[in-house]
Amino acid sequence: MNEKVNVSIVGGSGYTGGELLRLLLQHPQVNLTAATSRAYAGKLIHKVHPNLRGVTNLKFITPDKLPDCDVLFLALPHGAVVDKVDTYLDKTDVLIDMSSDFRLRNPQDYDRYYAQKHKRPDLLETFVYGMPELHREKIRTSKRIAVPGCTATGAILPLKPLVDAFNIRQVIIDAKVGSSASGAKSNGATHHPERQGVVRSFKPSGHRHLAEMEQELNPEGNISVNFSPHAVELVRGIQSTIHIFIDGEYEEKDVWQTYLKAYGREPFIRIVKEKSGIYRYPEPKVVMGTNVCEIGFEKDQATGRLIVMSAIDNLMKGASGQAVQCMNLALGLDETTGINQLGFHPV
Amino acid sequence: MNEKVNVSIVGGSGYTGGELLRLLLQHPQVNLTAATSRAYAGKLIHKVHPNLRGVTNLKFITPDKLPDCDVLFLALPHGAVVDKVDTYLDKTDVLIDMSSDFRLRNPQDYDRYYAQKHKRPDLLETFVYGMPELHREKIRTSKRIAVPGCTATGAILPLKPLVDAFNIRQVIIDAKVGSSASGAKSNGATHHPERQGVVRSFKPSGHRHLAEMEQELNPEGNISVNFSPHAVELVRGIQSTIHIFIDGEYEEKDVWQTYLKAYGREPFIRIVKEKSGIYRYPEPKVVMGTNVCEIGFEKDQATGRLIVMSAIDNLMKGASGQAVQCMNLALGLDETTGINQLGFHPV
Amino acid sequence: MNEKVNVSIVGGSGYTGGELLRLLLQHPQVNLTAATSRAYAGKLIHKVHPNLRGVTNLKFITPDKLPDCDVLFLALPHGAVVDKVDTYLDKTDVLIDMSSDFRLRNPQDYDRYYAQKHKRPDLLETFVYGMPELHREKIRTSKRIAVPGCTATGAILPLKPLVDAFNIRQVIIDAKVGSSASGAKSNGATHHPERQGVVRSFKPSGHRHLAEMEQELNPEGNISVNFSPHAVELVRGIQSTIHIFIDGEYEEKDVWQTYLKAYGREPFIRIVKEKSGIYRYPEPKVVMGTNVCEIGFEKDQATGRLIVMSAIDNLMKGASGQAVQCMNLALGLDETTGINQLGFHPV
Amino acid sequence: MNEKVNVSIVGGSGYTGGELLRLLLQHPQVNLTAATSRAYAGKLIHKVHPNLRGVTNLKFITPDKLPDCDVLFLALPHGAVVDKVDTYLDKTDVLIDMSSDFRLRNPQDYDRYYAQKHKRPDLLETFVYGMPELHREKIRTSKRIAVPGCTATGAILPLKPLVDAFNIRQVIIDAKVGSSASGAKSNGATHHPERQGVVRSFKPSGHRHLAEMEQELNPEGNISVNFSPHAVELVRGIQSTIHIFIDGEYEEKDVWQTYLKAYGREPFIRIVKEKSGIYRYPEPKVVMGTNVCEIGFEKDQATGRLIVMSAIDNLMKGASGQAVQCMNLALGLDETTGINQLGFHPV
Repeated sequence: MNEKVNVSIVGGSGYTGGELLRLLLQHPQVNLTAATSRAYAGKLIHKVHPNLRGVTNLKFITPDKLPDCDVLFLALPHGAVVDKVDTYLDKTDVLIDMSSDFRLRNPQDYDRYYAQKHKRPDLLETFVYGMPELHREKIRTSKRIAVPGCTATGAILPLKPLVDAFNIRQVIIDAKVGSSASGAKSNGATHHPERQGVVRSFKPSGHRHLAEMEQELNPEGNISVNFSPHAVELVRGIQSTIHIFIDGEYEEKDVWQTYLKAYGREPFIRIVKEKSGIYRYPEPKVVMGTNVCEIGFEKDQATGRLIVMSAIDNLMKGASGQAVQCMNLALGLDETTGINQLGFHPV
Repeated sequence: MNEKVNVSIVGGSGYTGGELLRLLLQHPQVNLTAATSRAYAGKLIHKVHPNLRGVTNLKFITPDKLPDCDVLFLALPHGAVVDKVDTYLDKTDVLIDMSSDFRLRNPQDYDRYYAQKHKRPDLLETFVYGMPELHREKIRTSKRIAVPGCTATGAILPLKPLVDAFNIRQVIIDAKVGSSASGAKSNGATHHPERQGVVRSFKPSGHRHLAEMEQELNPEGNISVNFSPHAVELVRGIQSTIHIFIDGEYEEKDVWQTYLKAYGREPFIRIVKEKSGIYRYPEPKVVMGTNVCEIGFEKDQATGRLIVMSAIDNLMKGASGQAVQCMNLALGLDETTGINQLGFHPV
Repeated sequence: MNEKVNVSIVGGSGYTGGELLRLLLQHPQVNLTAATSRAYAGKLIHKVHPNLRGVTNLKFITPDKLPDCDVLFLALPHGAVVDKVDTYLDKTDVLIDMSSDFRLRNPQDYDRYYAQKHKRPDLLETFVYGMPELHREKIRTSKRIAVPGCTATGAILPLKPLVDAFNIRQVIIDAKVGSSASGAKSNGATHHPERQGVVRSFKPSGHRHLAEMEQELNPEGNISVNFSPHAVELVRGIQSTIHIFIDGEYEEKDVWQTYLKAYGREPFIRIVKEKSGIYRYPEPKVVMGTNVCEIGFEKDQATGRLIVMSAIDNLMKGASGQAVQCMNLALGLDETTGINQLGFHPV
Repeated sequence: MNEKVNVSIVGGSGYTGGELLRLLLQHPQVNLTAATSRAYAGKLIHKVHPNLRGVTNLKFITPDKLPDCDVLFLALPHGAVVDKVDTYLDKTDVLIDMSSDFRLRNPQDYDRYYAQKHKRPDLLETFVYGMPELHREKIRTSKRIAVPGCTATGAILPLKPLVDAFNIRQVIIDAKVGSSASGAKSNGATHHPERQGVVRSFKPSGHRHLAEMEQELNPEGNISVNFSPHAVELVRGIQSTIHIFIDGEYEEKDVWQTYLKAYGREPFIRIVKEKSGIYRYPEPKVVMGTNVCEIGFEKDQATGRLIVMSAIDNLMKGASGQAVQCMNLALGLDETTGINQLGFHPV
């Protein structure tokens, strides 16, 4: 593929929009055409994203000036896409939606988890859930991709091979989340003196991302899926410890083999289980800035519980990195193009 | 009680020893007689604990110079007490051991959890487990007190009333722990660049404090008790989210009433469950520097899971604060003397 | 003094107001009568300050319901006092203003540093600058006290004895400031992802607190006083490194003697200069939660520069702690009452 | 240039060695041949640097097994190079030394700043000080490069154009440094509970990097150069605020023009001076992971002081990034190859 594709972003001033800008400005096959922002229209994008100083002279535009493009990313919050989805579909060949508006196939899940009737249930089936490890072939041929939620990604990736291989009765996902996951808008709870150093259970049950986990992992509803996210002192990153109870006997080597079979050739999955050293299990610091999801595990010999840990960068594999991975697939590019940077040590 | 008691500390240069020094130097009924440290003998204690500058001119002494005293605190690591326990018992009227050497009543638990035969099984029954909320009356009349482990405290306090009141099948304790909990000695894993900003599963199963939880909560062994601690970015504090599965129906108000009944008059337990605001559930920041254990909860309406959260300061209610609380009881003092400082906002 | 004094706070929901509440609720001579907050009137104060849960059932009131009292603290931002100062003066015997409205004696300083004409220049001389180490005797007899600014305190305390003793030509105060110093209101710059881990020069020159430094240290204007504050990763605390150039020879011992003479008996000043160990110079962590100002120094043998470091807790010695210290003096109480808590190690 | 060069690293297990590994493994013109580590010889490099998991199967070797190579990086501490420098020179065409052993041209500076006689003064003149912005042409033709110290880089880059253009009398460099700058070895002062959240003046005067600043900035000795570094809560990054006193009049635009002239075409220098927004001046967070040095400034209208701020990533522009930049120059490659990654927002 020689010619660059024209790519635009709606919602370029938020954190996932900014991360897309960072990735796309370095992507060898992308010509970044436009980025919209109502609040910052007319301003240089590096006024909002200081890491882009000296890299581009692009300015934010208002959404109504959005040009036609080959790929359009929607870096918008929940509910901001559905009303204008036809406009967006008209503008582009491939639409990659990072909001939650088209992630769920069953319209009733929107009633249940978002307390809102979905306005365009007719379109739900036309989107693919943009998690390449689960839906690669479909993404390759799709023009409409709904990028998964960040905590959903940190739970579904480690769990999917297990729910397929084992008779799982119950999972408890205890996630620890960095502050960038709550977006670029400040509020009382994100004020530094109130947010620094917290270990805060902010939504013990009923979190919306649970809907995605149920959809991808528990289609028959026979698993008790429990999810509790916590805000911790971290800007980027999600660590999930998943406590799993399995019916029947199993050994750690069965888990190893299950992961190897499922993920042995995945470019962005790393199984981490060291016997010694500091970094024996997945850690958000290690994957910061990368598109990698680290997965580790241990069997609790006393109770039989399987403990699985995962770590991702919420803005990368948890959002914009995964979105670009989907774009690469949809465009027939090497899947890792532009998102294969290494992580840092220390950081 | 008018006369001050003479109190000494063995192991004054560590973090729990330092916290004892801070508390005892301000305690109106205590005359701090001596603090030992092999490494710092002859040095002013404020060389190690800079917060005590200008407060005392006490110097560390070697353990062999330990004077007789009314109360002796042992702020020592696991295994450092048992060999010399007779010497210590000879020196004092009341012995308060903060190591794990005499916390477990069943000697076989030491084989299992500490991989070591206990050398003085004869003494185990002579110690009381120093958690006032569970064993207040026994502590009042005891001369030998074994202070609970920090993560054990954060789990047992919220769980005890529940295991008594409900038919609990399974608990999963997912704890998030500050760096001071691993003590004053540095190692590769505590080196700032490696420890800062981590969310690190360091002992997914088989942690030693589980022994205490089993002893206090699960004497009949009919509950599946699962414990996974994580290192997070925090110096002081432990947050535990406890996922509980109960046989039979229950409502949130049943949990309220259970806690009110058990802890309604406890000076250091606070039930926290707010409908709005930033601090709706327990948080380590809020209890930093205090002897308080905050407890909150929520019922997961989808799965029936009961989510319970607790927060303590690991050096206070998780160690030295609880130790002083025990001392107050054993001496017949007001239980809150010297440990009733308020927390901070913000911090 | 046996009877408690009735004390009220205007502006109880901010950080200095909250810190006052914490201190006054524990103060043995104070009966806390009322705390106002427009935004939270009618709400329990612990909804805003979660550290006060279980301590008091006081609710915020609107300012118009303020009762008469013996001592009134104004925990308000700049400009919020001057218009209503007569009302406040009517309500109380002793007025302690924590805003900057009456800190400067020369009305023209308000033009210059606050770009505003002072509306009540007639009152400026009736207030004493509430820094006990400099103006103790005046504070004892004063009914109107203007509490110094936080970075001004961290600069004036270490500098005052030196400007009196040496022929100082030039000082450069490079301060590092925690996030609580910018108050309880969130904005884009205090949003956790943007504020965490920064080293941010936010006002390289022309900071308003410079006015106080000039007033207290440089009445004749013969010293070049330079001040640059930086936001750093910290909630509470200010560290100031002060680079001083002196005309004429001097030795470190001259500095020692100057400080000993000036501050040898001060209850809240600690000279810190250790040859070894981790904590050789003042550090904000060590004074966190205390009313102490640590001061240390070193002579640069190569250039003759005198380097002086100070550390305070901006909400304590930098605001509410110092305010209570002033109240104690004005009431004839022991100066340290209610503000002599020890710091923490580690924290 | 089509063929890759063979590159080895001595000292691959430290932080600058690890950063070199990260950069060189991604460098399109480099074939990474070997990395030595006495402590970890025989171990996979990703056991030490977990960010390199899945990237390479290289194992550390002992220094005696070092193969011949085209470029050899020495990522060693001070004093570890000079004794074996002949061995290293024999092994390689281009030697890039990251220790301080050959940074200073005047052997007496080693007596003065390192309190040690230099053992190979004959070689000092054969090394070039590896700061491309100052010595680009010499680096291009040099086979021996001494990479500058991290805090020296943060001071010299912003100061050099100014000392050339203005009549500077005095500079005070107040630096704030992340914990990775003190290397991978833990000690009491880097233990997380003691290091977290500090603002620590650890070497108020006489820091060794001052020698480099004096050499590059003050050859005639007519400027009073003062340097005080502080440890702050940060893993990567150095922020320097430089207070400058100039003889004679100047305006901000003169400073602008000086920087534009000196650095207008530099690929890794960014002048940052915004009138509004959060990121108005240089910040370490913004350059984290990049080879960029940000420089900003303001004139203090009251005293005439020029305040200059710089920000670098100490492991990139402050060490390994700058080292690779030098290698690129010495090999005739595009100077930015392999080190032109963008920074992050937020991070």
